[in-house]
Amino acid sequence: MAVHRFSPDQWHNVLAALPAALKVADGDVIITQTIDAAGVDKDGISRTHGPNPMNGPIHVDGAMPGDVLQVDILRISPIRPDGWTRGALAGNVVDPERVRDLPPRDRIEWNIDLDVGTVRLRDDVPGLEHLVLPLEPMIGCFGVAPAGGEAISTATSASNGGNMDYRGFGPGARVWFPVFEPGALFFLGDCHAIQGDGEIVGTGVETAMEVEIRLSVLKNRHQAWPRGETAETIYTLGNARPLDQALQHATTEMFDWLTGDEYGLSAVAASHLMGQLVRYDVGNVFDPAFTMVCHMPKKYLPKSLRPR
Amino acid sequence: MAVHRFSPDQWHNVLAALPAALKVADGDVIITQTIDAAGVDKDGISRTHGPNPMNGPIHVDGAMPGDVLQVDILRISPIRPDGWTRGALAGNVVDPERVRDLPPRDRIEWNIDLDVGTVRLRDDVPGLEHLVLPLEPMIGCFGVAPAGGEAISTATSASNGGNMDYRGFGPGARVWFPVFEPGALFFLGDCHAIQGDGEIVGTGVETAMEVEIRLSVLKNRHQAWPRGETAETIYTLGNARPLDQALQHATTEMFDWLTGDEYGLSAVAASHLMGQLVRYDVGNVFDPAFTMVCHMPKKYLPKSLRPR
Amino acid sequence: MAVHRFSPDQWHNVLAALPAALKVADGDVIITQTIDAAGVDKDGISRTHGPNPMNGPIHVDGAMPGDVLQVDILRISPIRPDGWTRGALAGNVVDPERVRDLPPRDRIEWNIDLDVGTVRLRDDVPGLEHLVLPLEPMIGCFGVAPAGGEAISTATSASNGGNMDYRGFGPGARVWFPVFEPGALFFLGDCHAIQGDGEIVGTGVETAMEVEIRLSVLKNRHQAWPRGETAETIYTLGNARPLDQALQHATTEMFDWLTGDEYGLSAVAASHLMGQLVRYDVGNVFDPAFTMVCHMPKKYLPKSLRPR
Amino acid sequence: MAVHRFSPDQWHNVLAALPAALKVADGDVIITQTIDAAGVDKDGISRTHGPNPMNGPIHVDGAMPGDVLQVDILRISPIRPDGWTRGALAGNVVDPERVRDLPPRDRIEWNIDLDVGTVRLRDDVPGLEHLVLPLEPMIGCFGVAPAGGEAISTATSASNGGNMDYRGFGPGARVWFPVFEPGALFFLGDCHAIQGDGEIVGTGVETAMEVEIRLSVLKNRHQAWPRGETAETIYTLGNARPLDQALQHATTEMFDWLTGDEYGLSAVAASHLMGQLVRYDVGNVFDPAFTMVCHMPKKYLPKSLRPR
Repeated sequence: MAVHRFSPDQWHNVLAALPAALKVADGDVIITQTIDAAGVDKDGISRTHGPNPMNGPIHVDGAMPGDVLQVDILRISPIRPDGWTRGALAGNVVDPERVRDLPPRDRIEWNIDLDVGTVRLRDDVPGLEHLVLPLEPMIGCFGVAPAGGEAISTATSASNGGNMDYRGFGPGARVWFPVFEPGALFFLGDCHAIQGDGEIVGTGVETAMEVEIRLSVLKNRHQAWPRGETAETIYTLGNARPLDQALQHATTEMFDWLTGDEYGLSAVAASHLMGQLVRYDVGNVFDPAFTMVCHMPKKYLPKSLRPR
Repeated sequence: MAVHRFSPDQWHNVLAALPAALKVADGDVIITQTIDAAGVDKDGISRTHGPNPMNGPIHVDGAMPGDVLQVDILRISPIRPDGWTRGALAGNVVDPERVRDLPPRDRIEWNIDLDVGTVRLRDDVPGLEHLVLPLEPMIGCFGVAPAGGEAISTATSASNGGNMDYRGFGPGARVWFPVFEPGALFFLGDCHAIQGDGEIVGTGVETAMEVEIRLSVLKNRHQAWPRGETAETIYTLGNARPLDQALQHATTEMFDWLTGDEYGLSAVAASHLMGQLVRYDVGNVFDPAFTMVCHMPKKYLPKSLRPR
Repeated sequence: MAVHRFSPDQWHNVLAALPAALKVADGDVIITQTIDAAGVDKDGISRTHGPNPMNGPIHVDGAMPGDVLQVDILRISPIRPDGWTRGALAGNVVDPERVRDLPPRDRIEWNIDLDVGTVRLRDDVPGLEHLVLPLEPMIGCFGVAPAGGEAISTATSASNGGNMDYRGFGPGARVWFPVFEPGALFFLGDCHAIQGDGEIVGTGVETAMEVEIRLSVLKNRHQAWPRGETAETIYTLGNARPLDQALQHATTEMFDWLTGDEYGLSAVAASHLMGQLVRYDVGNVFDPAFTMVCHMPKKYLPKSLRPR
Repeated sequence: MAVHRFSPDQWHNVLAALPAALKVADGDVIITQTIDAAGVDKDGISRTHGPNPMNGPIHVDGAMPGDVLQVDILRISPIRPDGWTRGALAGNVVDPERVRDLPPRDRIEWNIDLDVGTVRLRDDVPGLEHLVLPLEPMIGCFGVAPAGGEAISTATSASNGGNMDYRGFGPGARVWFPVFEPGALFFLGDCHAIQGDGEIVGTGVETAMEVEIRLSVLKNRHQAWPRGETAETIYTLGNARPLDQALQHATTEMFDWLTGDEYGLSAVAASHLMGQLVRYDVGNVFDPAFTMVCHMPKKYLPKSLRPR
């Protein structure tokens, strides 16, 4: 297992089968610094433009269509003492006639205390004078090259991942993406110092991060949508609009997982477990595609038939 | 403060301005036994028909349109050793072409162990032989008479509450409903022994319960949708379809709460807090109207200006 | 066959099983004057309040649950020389961030020339100085008492009809509603002098009308949603939100019609006809429930097995 | 003005900034033969795979980002005596639980009579024995390379056009696409012999066609979504899911057109016209993105300020 330090000098605003910027072996670790959603790096220098410029793609040896790419997020460290947000709720998350009551979507500056791990508004805002938020770093946008020759904007998401903006994608997360192109062609970027569910102002606290991940290949494992696991749950993600359809995709993927080779449940048994135990988390509800996450607690699942 | 034992002999399948079945004073406690979603009582006797027959309405002295009814759920105790679910995911929660793969929506029986507080499938289902679920009692459907002379089916939900099927409505929950009719006219029923998010098989474990609640009136307090609080958060509920619109209602209600008299934040300050801190929970996604819950952690809020 | 002149002195803002204001026989004709959506009559006198006050309910002898009520719109005559609209697109019909660019939703006055049958803005609006619109009278809201004891606001619509705002409901229209209550309990009101598809400013040209209709009962005829026919087509209506679901209801109802007793087509044959021939019209897209209309040209249908 | 006969030997399943297969001058005419949605040509030979393989891209001299590409469909002639459809309604256009009642989505063969211009089922289907449909040829999928380096599957649609499946795109249609890449990079394919609104079986009668079009460049003309005109109307298209959002895009684009340089109406005046006169047509409701078309009758519009 090798450790790669990956310092890109170009970035991408689509996830696509682009020429590999780095080639790694199955199981290698990559340490890379991401720039913010608008293309500004850790030193405050504009390196490219938004939306959500990506480091990558990283080609993983041995990954072929029909396989799965396992991404272990080992570490996400902030590397810039500031970040930014938008100063108003997005128009699409409030009642339509109430959009008239929203303030302008100005850019707002935040300070990040790298030592103590906190986030604060740079300028005093009445009522929020003493607001100190914890650092809860996460990857907003990551995934692999999509199927069928598509190049999908990093402003949105699909079955290959992308801009899902799910708070669960922090240090310790394990995520599986279906592989559609040889080498998987993994991309990442758009890290946030903290973010609420839904990214309902259209941003988290956008900043530069140093990210350490491990990429591994699981061979011949049918999967239609991103999956993951935590210590307590397995989960699936659906990306679509409306949120109902994102929920349909995530729910169908969980149903397929439970009724597939790994757990081998009948459709009736899977329905029983899902009906009484499932938990949904909301990812991005600002993008063209929304993200819904379907969790199942592991403790009630039959023991998986094959090693993970 | 009085304690009322309320034993209805008729039930309702709509929330509406119907004649009061019980009159109580502000702050009184009511103990009542609910029948299940299909109208079967604790002794297994069919008392009426579904959907979700309600106990009530309970008239609370002093509650007038423009006020708020506070509902404290003090206790929910199972009183029947069995319950039932549907044996298949609902058609609307999976990808449309995959509905063909779902089993029939048969009725499935569960046993409830009243002593140890667990729930089990009555018949062996392969892969689930040793499944023992905890009792997590909740109220599926409750609320007040709606505005404008409407009578709204207990199969759905609206700004007056109704069939929200939110797991958060268990013992200890505090919920506020806007009052639209004199006396508020409170209804409750459709209790579940356990239920996953979304009620995605169309049921929780449907059973009879003894419920103990306190009803209190908060005067002159503008509120458009149900609200509540937990030890850590305040929250709002939106009920609509698609889920995007339920989320819009819940988010707008939280925005109005934070920018209203109580917290007095500006629209910009409210956007900052909500954008980086909000958490969404998913209620019912099976009914005609879906339910989305928007939570804000109290610890980051300015101190409320008036006592709650 | 009798002709009734029906002059109500009270109006309703819900469709529900209310006491009959008029009882008629199967096949009778009713002539009645409707007031406008805000409750103003033909003389400019405010008689009640909105939304969409209804004349009715009219009890039709012999109509029982499981039957169908046939409504023939024989005539709609304007009886007031003015009407009104809202002066801005509704927030929900434009891109969310663009709601900020919409003007206020002021009330705008129009003149109706009863002799020549035209509609004009009362005040000059730059660019529209010479605008003269034709009179295209229609019923915005009509239907029968809903099932299950519900009382449904005239601001919305459901399987019993209601505020569908479909331009096709003008003179000559034939519409069938499923009957849920004895006597059907028919309501009508909210007539428009003209209206674009979708009622996208939230109003047509709202005014008072004299309406002449015939109500007839068709016994034992299964129908879940409103249906109708024109000289060239048969059609079905679905009312729900989002528009996708309204389309699902209308499409399913057409599928059920074609595969039912009357036409007796197989599911495959119905799919062929619908796939290559169906036409959709858009009704209201402003209400809580939206309306979609599914038309099939009669000329390609097998001859109906029973007389209509 | 030149006439080009364009015979591609490769096809594309995405709309993207791919190398030009043909370069033409502003105003040139192109005659080209399209293969069917599955990649089969006029002789029944499989030339490539689906979805919807495209002829192109065609580079039009002088077209630059910020311009508009005008597409005049001069002729669409069937060149194969057969076509095919799917034999069942798509799962997403019926009520979810009713998907269980749909037949399998088998491929169905149709004969096309090239001389008399009719379409018939190849095999007898009970109830449809004498069904003869008119030939109503149309282009299912066409458009230009999208913005931002995206490559968008021909199974869906976006602001650059794509698989809109709108019946209005037949001979005589004039359509304008925003240009995002130098040369516009125009694609076309997926022609249908006939198709109902919505493409609700997932296909029209899929076949090979000879298409004759003229491509012209309009300089410096702001446009966000496809637009077009007929003899009686101007129209806009929105492509998104749910259908509500497609309608929002189309409606906003019409609002922008009417309030832009060309017609110069105020927001109030545009709201008046749109509110009382707009007509919506439904394009594809089967794809990932749905299509809604917003028409305005020309006769009520102020005279356009500049020549078209």
